[in-house]
Amino acid sequence: MVPTSIRVIYGDTDQMGVVYYANYLRYFEAGRSEFLRARGLTYRDFEEAFRLRLPVAEAGVRYRLPARYDDLLTVETSLVQVRRASARFEYRVVRPDGAALATGHTVHACVDLDGRVHRMPRDLLDRLADGEPPTPGPTQE
Amino acid sequence: MVPTSIRVIYGDTDQMGVVYYANYLRYFEAGRSEFLRARGLTYRDFEEAFRLRLPVAEAGVRYRLPARYDDLLTVETSLVQVRRASARFEYRVVRPDGAALATGHTVHACVDLDGRVHRMPRDLLDRLADGEPPTPGPTQE
Amino acid sequence: MVPTSIRVIYGDTDQMGVVYYANYLRYFEAGRSEFLRARGLTYRDFEEAFRLRLPVAEAGVRYRLPARYDDLLTVETSLVQVRRASARFEYRVVRPDGAALATGHTVHACVDLDGRVHRMPRDLLDRLADGEPPTPGPTQE
Amino acid sequence: MVPTSIRVIYGDTDQMGVVYYANYLRYFEAGRSEFLRARGLTYRDFEEAFRLRLPVAEAGVRYRLPARYDDLLTVETSLVQVRRASARFEYRVVRPDGAALATGHTVHACVDLDGRVHRMPRDLLDRLADGEPPTPGPTQE
Repeated sequence: MVPTSIRVIYGDTDQMGVVYYANYLRYFEAGRSEFLRARGLTYRDFEEAFRLRLPVAEAGVRYRLPARYDDLLTVETSLVQVRRASARFEYRVVRPDGAALATGHTVHACVDLDGRVHRMPRDLLDRLADGEPPTPGPTQE
Repeated sequence: MVPTSIRVIYGDTDQMGVVYYANYLRYFEAGRSEFLRARGLTYRDFEEAFRLRLPVAEAGVRYRLPARYDDLLTVETSLVQVRRASARFEYRVVRPDGAALATGHTVHACVDLDGRVHRMPRDLLDRLADGEPPTPGPTQE
Repeated sequence: MVPTSIRVIYGDTDQMGVVYYANYLRYFEAGRSEFLRARGLTYRDFEEAFRLRLPVAEAGVRYRLPARYDDLLTVETSLVQVRRASARFEYRVVRPDGAALATGHTVHACVDLDGRVHRMPRDLLDRLADGEPPTPGPTQE
Repeated sequence: MVPTSIRVIYGDTDQMGVVYYANYLRYFEAGRSEFLRARGLTYRDFEEAFRLRLPVAEAGVRYRLPARYDDLLTVETSLVQVRRASARFEYRVVRPDGAALATGHTVHACVDLDGRVHRMPRDLLDRLADGEPPTPGPTQE
């Protein structure tokens, strides 16, 4: 698990006085990006070095407690499954007092720059797995 | 089903040249709002007249094909289930050529202005159901 | 002047109960895009046909009255000046009752796809000017 | 001057491959919020303790160089003028190599919770000025 800090700005809130629901997907992205950085690669490298992309195929969020303006949130990001050509991340958004405000997941396809499904490179898999073994999916080789 | 038109602006896209994944939840909200308006009530009325809110408890999206800058999208919004104190909407985002770019859902709790779970008023249920019978949930009375 | 309708969604508001200040720049962009469409060209065409871009060099907004959730706003967009390699748009965001909520402007450079300043093509100038003569700038030829 | 770090996420970029122009106003807000925190008060406190708000009356940005995905930006925020019932902040967004990508300003009115213009409290002025004397405006008393 890799933690990422997020300070809620006014622009993240809505008139209900809480963080607007779509913004959790932005927080998840920030968490995912820091997860990759903690594994020694940036998503920018990913595109440039591997000539691959990881577009989101699926996303889901469960909203448990509202986040509010100026809250210092932590997005806890885990890579929970890597398959031949996809990966699944899970996220918890927690407050300093430990309360889990939201949980969610994203599933990413691995595609080349022309958008065709592409097998995850072994080198990438090794680096992603570094320090925290993701669950191998049944179709991973 | 209630259709809502959305014109994709530059600010909705990301550097992959497609609509950023979080923005579909904004599109869903626009669809939901127009759904309520087509039923003769606005979400603003909902808060003011019924003294209730419908915060999102859960959201999910499946991304099938990318939406691009200047696309004229239609969000097709349906209310598929109403329970005693919750409601589930489903969404399809389609292009003029009929291609479904994304599908998704949101589940909303019905709460009062203090955030306590509150039974959906009968009057509200009648208006929501107008023209398109939602599937009654097992706990609805 | 070209009018564009914008329905304020929840995601546009902040906890002060009004539209968040950055979102007016999104509204301006929607207005600018419809302005070009009304002149028979889309910004997408602009990039593809002319191989040019119009990045924003400067933007300003004066906030006069707050816009609120579910307001049906009109962005009134005018092209007020075209120079050799730049253009200035002005915007008014008005409510149905005619109240001007915000006014603003953007200045755009004309650059080629490598980012170098490029003279506005005559054909483009003619189309932009169609129906509403912008003020020629002193350096325009 | 108070510095604030911002990591550019994918959701901040647009299809031109650079940060979308409206997002600089979000960055400015983050900078302003950290500026207040560095002065020992949060904007949340401001609303709760002083029963006042600082809505934006005017904003402007000059875009000099594009910010890109994953850039680690610094927003340098200064309070440059405090008048009887308004304040002006200025911002520079810089890259680690020192390049100034954008500069801008915001002017804020001081209003009470009913939206009426309200004189800046002396206690607030003292705290804002702490460590960095803002230029007193001509109408300040």
